[in-house]
Amino acid sequence: MEQVSENRCFGGRQLRFKHESSSTNIPMHFSVFLPSSAETAKVPALFWLSGLTCTDENFVQKAGAQRYAEEFGMALIAPDTSPRGESVADDPDGGWDFGLGAGFYVDATEAPFAANYQMYSYISRELPELIKNHFPVDPRRFSISGHSMGGHGALTIAIKHPKLFRSVSAFAPICAPSQCPWGQKALTGYLGSDQATWREYDTCALVTDRGCDFQLLVDQGSSDQFLLEQLQPDLLQKACLDAEVDLTLRIRDGYDHSYFYIASFIGEHIRFHAESI
Amino acid sequence: MEQVSENRCFGGRQLRFKHESSSTNIPMHFSVFLPSSAETAKVPALFWLSGLTCTDENFVQKAGAQRYAEEFGMALIAPDTSPRGESVADDPDGGWDFGLGAGFYVDATEAPFAANYQMYSYISRELPELIKNHFPVDPRRFSISGHSMGGHGALTIAIKHPKLFRSVSAFAPICAPSQCPWGQKALTGYLGSDQATWREYDTCALVTDRGCDFQLLVDQGSSDQFLLEQLQPDLLQKACLDAEVDLTLRIRDGYDHSYFYIASFIGEHIRFHAESI
Repeated sequence: MEQVSENRCFGGRQLRFKHESSSTNIPMHFSVFLPSSAETAKVPALFWLSGLTCTDENFVQKAGAQRYAEEFGMALIAPDTSPRGESVADDPDGGWDFGLGAGFYVDATEAPFAANYQMYSYISRELPELIKNHFPVDPRRFSISGHSMGGHGALTIAIKHPKLFRSVSAFAPICAPSQCPWGQKALTGYLGSDQATWREYDTCALVTDRGCDFQLLVDQGSSDQFLLEQLQPDLLQKACLDAEVDLTLRIRDGYDHSYFYIASFIGEHIRFHAESI
Repeated sequence: MEQVSENRCFGGRQLRFKHESSSTNIPMHFSVFLPSSAETAKVPALFWLSGLTCTDENFVQKAGAQRYAEEFGMALIAPDTSPRGESVADDPDGGWDFGLGAGFYVDATEAPFAANYQMYSYISRELPELIKNHFPVDPRRFSISGHSMGGHGALTIAIKHPKLFRSVSAFAPICAPSQCPWGQKALTGYLGSDQATWREYDTCALVTDRGCDFQLLVDQGSSDQFLLEQLQPDLLQKACLDAEVDLTLRIRDGYDHSYFYIASFIGEHIRFHAESI
């Protein structure tokens, strides 16, 4: 593991690393913010999964989350959104919603993507282990959040790993990828056309199939340009109601899909995680 | 004047505009944050001048200043750092420290730059007038700040326009452009080799030549990679001591030149301006 940058920020340290991933079989970058309290004690950690087109750096540069992470004494872990490199397969049509920057946090089974697109294993197994072994964090106090495609990733991974991630929230998540254009394109490409295999990576399907005995905190801007076609929180609301899952859905009047929206409410989410774990 | 974007942010509105500039003779972009209090009253405004390579968007996306601007009920005005367009002259050597993205907030007199590089007039006359006429701001409560090249711009413009900008601060400013490589290259290129003309655009020279009867707040990271060669706050300290100018120089231990540093302390600066004007 190689450290590629360090910047002092709000009294803590913003770090970036590169490492060889055994899941994706390619070097991966990730970013870590350590609050000043991590100098003397193990701190809780929030994993943040970013959305389409992002790297590990967008959240780090645009969300202003470090201020709150320092205040609540919490580490922030920001992985990339896909494997990257010249040898990594990309969308044959050149789209930004599949392939590089769009791993959808699944373990691909279809060629040629299966070779590197193993983001589910990377986020739910390899990275937490790496973080636990190399940083002053308390692995009993891991939580997870994310935005859009990353909100989908956070919810699906938390539902399947409730002992690893003790609390979950999401900003404008893709709630039912099996039922929206972004998700259908990605799941077909990574998993093939048998929709039975998609249910493992669809929050609404997971809620229906498995239930969930902890709270889901979901934040959604009312003026989000992707709300109706891609995000569909109404489907999640219905699935949670039917399955008696505790969903807190916060609609933010006039907010859109941008980091201006995330920045406005990330403090509330960090407080939620700090108080939950 | 054309509005090109709007995003809700921390309860206020982050806006971006494009307009034909009579100073630079080319369309210019600028960004404006209006806090929610601007819906019912005229608010003070902080002009932010960015550094080398930046557009009007870096500060808006990376500093997290909107949170504090909303808290203190202050508008934020972020102009671009140079004229832009295919017809605009650029560094013939392709450097990032001169030409596009590097207008240095001077009125160029040398061809071919004089045709468009009139950033001093743009910032000190045209833009404040435009802001006053189109937004709910109180022109008696304008203040100015900036980073690096923009810190140089904020200090020089404030010293020359104390009735327009009622308070000034700077992050890691180029304190003596006549005496550092970035400044010498830019001032030679825009103003020619007669160094007498440079003194109007050099904070240390202005302090020496004119004095200044208000406080200069300067913030500087101790681990800034440009500290010794380009920024030279020691020269400003000496000039202010000799001229009996009230300089507050805050050295931040371990901070560098990045927006992680700016984000960490922009709240203090916004509070300073809110309490000064």
